[in-house]
Amino acid sequence: MMARLLSTSCPLDIASSSRSYYKPSNQGSISLSSSLSLRISRLPLKKLSIYGKKSQRHCTIYTTAVSTSQEAKTEPGTGSYRSSSEASTPKKVMVIGGDGYCGWATSLHLSNKNYEVAIVDNLVRRLFDHQLGLDSLTPISSIHNRIRRWRSLTGKDIQLYVGDICDFEFLSEAFKSFEPDAVVHFGEQRSAPYSMIDRSRAIFTQQNNVIGTLNVLFAIKEFKEDCHLVKLGTMGEYGTPNIDIEEGYITITHNGRTDTLPYPKQASSFYHLSKVHDSHNIAFTCKAWGIRATDLNQGVVYGLRTDETAMHEELCNRLDYDAVFGTALNRFCVQAAVDHPLTVYGKGGQTRGYLDIRDTVQCVELAIANPAQQGEFRVFNQFTEQFSVNQLATLVTKAGEKLGLQVRTISVPNPRVEAEEHYYNAKHTKLVELGLKPHLLSDSLLDSLLNFAVQYKDRVDTKQIMPSVSWRKIGVKPKTVSA
Amino acid sequence: MMARLLSTSCPLDIASSSRSYYKPSNQGSISLSSSLSLRISRLPLKKLSIYGKKSQRHCTIYTTAVSTSQEAKTEPGTGSYRSSSEASTPKKVMVIGGDGYCGWATSLHLSNKNYEVAIVDNLVRRLFDHQLGLDSLTPISSIHNRIRRWRSLTGKDIQLYVGDICDFEFLSEAFKSFEPDAVVHFGEQRSAPYSMIDRSRAIFTQQNNVIGTLNVLFAIKEFKEDCHLVKLGTMGEYGTPNIDIEEGYITITHNGRTDTLPYPKQASSFYHLSKVHDSHNIAFTCKAWGIRATDLNQGVVYGLRTDETAMHEELCNRLDYDAVFGTALNRFCVQAAVDHPLTVYGKGGQTRGYLDIRDTVQCVELAIANPAQQGEFRVFNQFTEQFSVNQLATLVTKAGEKLGLQVRTISVPNPRVEAEEHYYNAKHTKLVELGLKPHLLSDSLLDSLLNFAVQYKDRVDTKQIMPSVSWRKIGVKPKTVSA
Repeated sequence: MMARLLSTSCPLDIASSSRSYYKPSNQGSISLSSSLSLRISRLPLKKLSIYGKKSQRHCTIYTTAVSTSQEAKTEPGTGSYRSSSEASTPKKVMVIGGDGYCGWATSLHLSNKNYEVAIVDNLVRRLFDHQLGLDSLTPISSIHNRIRRWRSLTGKDIQLYVGDICDFEFLSEAFKSFEPDAVVHFGEQRSAPYSMIDRSRAIFTQQNNVIGTLNVLFAIKEFKEDCHLVKLGTMGEYGTPNIDIEEGYITITHNGRTDTLPYPKQASSFYHLSKVHDSHNIAFTCKAWGIRATDLNQGVVYGLRTDETAMHEELCNRLDYDAVFGTALNRFCVQAAVDHPLTVYGKGGQTRGYLDIRDTVQCVELAIANPAQQGEFRVFNQFTEQFSVNQLATLVTKAGEKLGLQVRTISVPNPRVEAEEHYYNAKHTKLVELGLKPHLLSDSLLDSLLNFAVQYKDRVDTKQIMPSVSWRKIGVKPKTVSA
Repeated sequence: MMARLLSTSCPLDIASSSRSYYKPSNQGSISLSSSLSLRISRLPLKKLSIYGKKSQRHCTIYTTAVSTSQEAKTEPGTGSYRSSSEASTPKKVMVIGGDGYCGWATSLHLSNKNYEVAIVDNLVRRLFDHQLGLDSLTPISSIHNRIRRWRSLTGKDIQLYVGDICDFEFLSEAFKSFEPDAVVHFGEQRSAPYSMIDRSRAIFTQQNNVIGTLNVLFAIKEFKEDCHLVKLGTMGEYGTPNIDIEEGYITITHNGRTDTLPYPKQASSFYHLSKVHDSHNIAFTCKAWGIRATDLNQGVVYGLRTDETAMHEELCNRLDYDAVFGTALNRFCVQAAVDHPLTVYGKGGQTRGYLDIRDTVQCVELAIANPAQQGEFRVFNQFTEQFSVNQLATLVTKAGEKLGLQVRTISVPNPRVEAEEHYYNAKHTKLVELGLKPHLLSDSLLDSLLNFAVQYKDRVDTKQIMPSVSWRKIGVKPKTVSA
C-alpha cells in the first residue's frame, strides 16, 4: 500500500482555475463505475501548497492518496520522483499538454511502456470549452482523477505539474525537478478555427505557441542539454503545393547548383502559422545550441480508443466534434450518429494526411526510442493515409449503412480560405522505417468510431456542428458565444 | 505664420518615458545652432492631454508652436490633418518606427517628396541605449525637436503618434485618425545581437515584432483595407544557401512537377527569425484577406547622410557602432577613426548584401509609388552590392590610408553561429526595374563616412566595440551591463 502526493506547481491564476475542475465531492473517495474492481483505502487528505508567482499568495488543493491492489513500480514511500542518476531505465518523459486529446493518450501509452511520465499542462483546453460553450462528446474526468485512476489500475505513477509553460519560472521548476530525458510538446493552442475567431485569439495562439516553445528550448539548453525535444508540428505547415511534399527538407537544383533546404511553408491559419514559426525557431536552436529535436508534422488525428484509455471510463479520452475543435472524420461520425448531414466544406477535394490516435502514440514512442542526434533537427511526416474530404464522407456513409444509419452529405460554404481541388502527395516513410505499424482506416474502425458516436449521441449539441468561424470575416472585436 | 500641435496619443507608460526625452529647458524656445537662419516666433505653450490606456490617468506634455519664414504647404490654422476624402495627393504614409535609423531618414525623405507623413513610434530604441549604456556616435535630438525643426525648415508637417503598436487600442486610434494609404513598418527590434543577449530579450524580440506586425495587419483589414503595407524584412531571412537566392519565391521542379513556392528560410538569430515569422504571417493575410503587401528584404545599411538629414544638425540621424546595434561597415569606419583595429568575426568570408541609407529611402519611396496589387505578397531584395567582411575591411583600410589613418584588422572569435566561408549570390533586380539608382560603395562614400567618424571620434566609447553577445552562451538569466 502506498500513499503518494500529486506534485503540482503552478502560478496562482492557473491554480485557481484548476481548482474549479477539482470537485470537492471527489475528495477522499473515488467512485468506481467501471467493471474493474479495485480495493481502495481511504487515507487522510493530504494538503499541498501551491505558490502564486507574482503575488506569492498561497492557495491549497487537496489530493487523495489511493492505494492499489497491484504492486507499485515506483519507489515506495518517498512521495517524490527518482533522482537523475537513477533515471537510466525507464526514461523520463515530460509530456507538455498531457491533458489534451493526443497528450493524454500519449501519456498513458508511455507510462504503460514503463517510461516515467510527467504531465505539464495548464488545463486551458478545458477553459476554452467553457468559454465557447463546447464539450467533449465523451465525458472526461479531471486530470487529477485521471492520474489517480491510472495509478490505481496499474500502479504506475504520472507526475503532474499544473502551470503555463509561457511562465518560465514555472517551467524551470518543473524541468529542474523532473529532469526529463525527452520532452513531448503538445502544449499549444491546436485549433485552426480557434485561431481565426477574432484578433485576440489569433494573437493568443501565436504568442502562446511560439513563446511557450521558445521557453521549452531555453529550459532544455539551461537545465538538460541532452534532452530530446519531440515537438508536435502539423502537415498543415506545408500547405498544398503542386509538387510532392517531402519530410521537412527538399533538395533543390537551381541554376546549376544544389542544396538541401527546409521545405517551403505555406500555412493557412494563424494556428498553422504558429507551428511554422516553431519549426524555424527549433531548427535554429539545433544549429546554434546543439539541441536535438524531432518535429512531428502530424496529419489529422481520428479515433477515440487506445489500449490504455479503454481500461477504465475515467481514463476515457475527449472527442471533439464541434466546428472549432472537431477534426473532419470525428465530426462526420458524430454527424452520422445524430442524423445530421455530413458537412463538406466547399467542393470537398481538400486532401490531407490522416492517422489513428493509436498511431499517434506509437509514433511518439518511436521518436523517443530513436532520438535525434545532438544538433539534429529531424522532421517526420506523421500520418498513414491520405483522403479527400469527399472520400471521408463516402467512407462514413458506407460504414453508417452497415449500422443502419441513413447518412446524408451536404456541401456548406467553405469558411476557410484553401484550395478545394489540388494536387497532394506527401511522403511519410521515415516513421515506417523506424517500425510504425499503421492502423489503417477500415470499415471496422469506422464501425468502432461510429459506435462510440452512437453510444454518446444524447450528449451531442447539434448547434456546435455547423461552421462558425470565417477566415475572411475575422475582425478585431472580441467574439463571444451567446447562451 | 502658423501654430500647430503635435498630435500625440500614447499609453501612460510610454508617455512617461517619452516625457523624459522632452527636456523642459526646450519649452517655448528652440536654439538655432546651424548656419540656417530662421525667424522664430514664440507662441504660448499649448497643452496636450495624453490618456493612459489602463489607468485612464492623464499626463500632459507641452509642445511649442513654431512659425517659419517659409510658406507652409499644409492647411493653415486647423491644427489637425486632412480628412480622408482630400488625401488623393500627396498620399498619406504612416511610418512605424519613424524615430529609428532607417525610419527617420525615410520619414524625412517621404515628407520632402510631399507625402503626408505620420510617425508612429514608442521610442523604445532610445530606451535600449539607456539600458545597455550605449549611444549613437552622432548626437541626436528628441523626436519632438526633430519634427519641429523639420517643420521650421520646410513648412512640412509630420504627425507624431507616440505609442506601442503591440497595444491595439493605441494602433487603432492612430489608424482611424490618420487613415494611411501606405504603412511603412520599421517598428521592430532590429538587432540580431540584442535578440541573443538573454532569454527575456529573445522573447521580447519575437513577441514585439510578431505581435506588432499582426496588429498592423488587423488594423489594415479593419480600418483601411486598401492600405499598402511596406514591411521591412531582411536578407538574413534566407541565410546562406548553396544556391542562388531569388526574390521571395523560387520555382522548383521536383519529381516531374513544378511549382513556385516561398523561398526556403534559414534565419540565424531570434531577430532574423522574427522577420521570417512576419513574412509567413503577412503572406497568409494577403491570401486570406486580400492585403496588399511588399516585403523589403533589406541588406545591411550603411551611411549617415541623406539629403534631408543633412539640412540641419537637429535632423542628424543616429549612427550605431557598438557590438549590439552597429552594422559592419559603420562599425569599421568608427574603428578606423579611433585607431581601433577592425574586428573581423572569424574568417571574415561572411558575405551579405549592403546598401547606402540613401538607397533605403529611395527603395521605400519606389515601393510606395508602385504599390502591390490587392492580395499580392510581393518580395523585393533591397540591397545594391555584395561584400564579404574581409572585403569591407580592405576597402576601409584603403579609404583610411587616403585620410592618413593607419588601419589595422584583427580576427576575433566569431560570437555568432554562421558559415564563415560560403557561396552567396542573391538577386536584386526588382527595385532596379522600378527605377532604383544605386549609390555604390565607393571611395568617396567611405571618405564621407570616415569623415563623420573622425568628426565625432571624441564621442566613441571604445568599450562598446568588441563583441559582447555570444550566440552559444545565451542563457535564461537577465543580463545587465555594469557601470
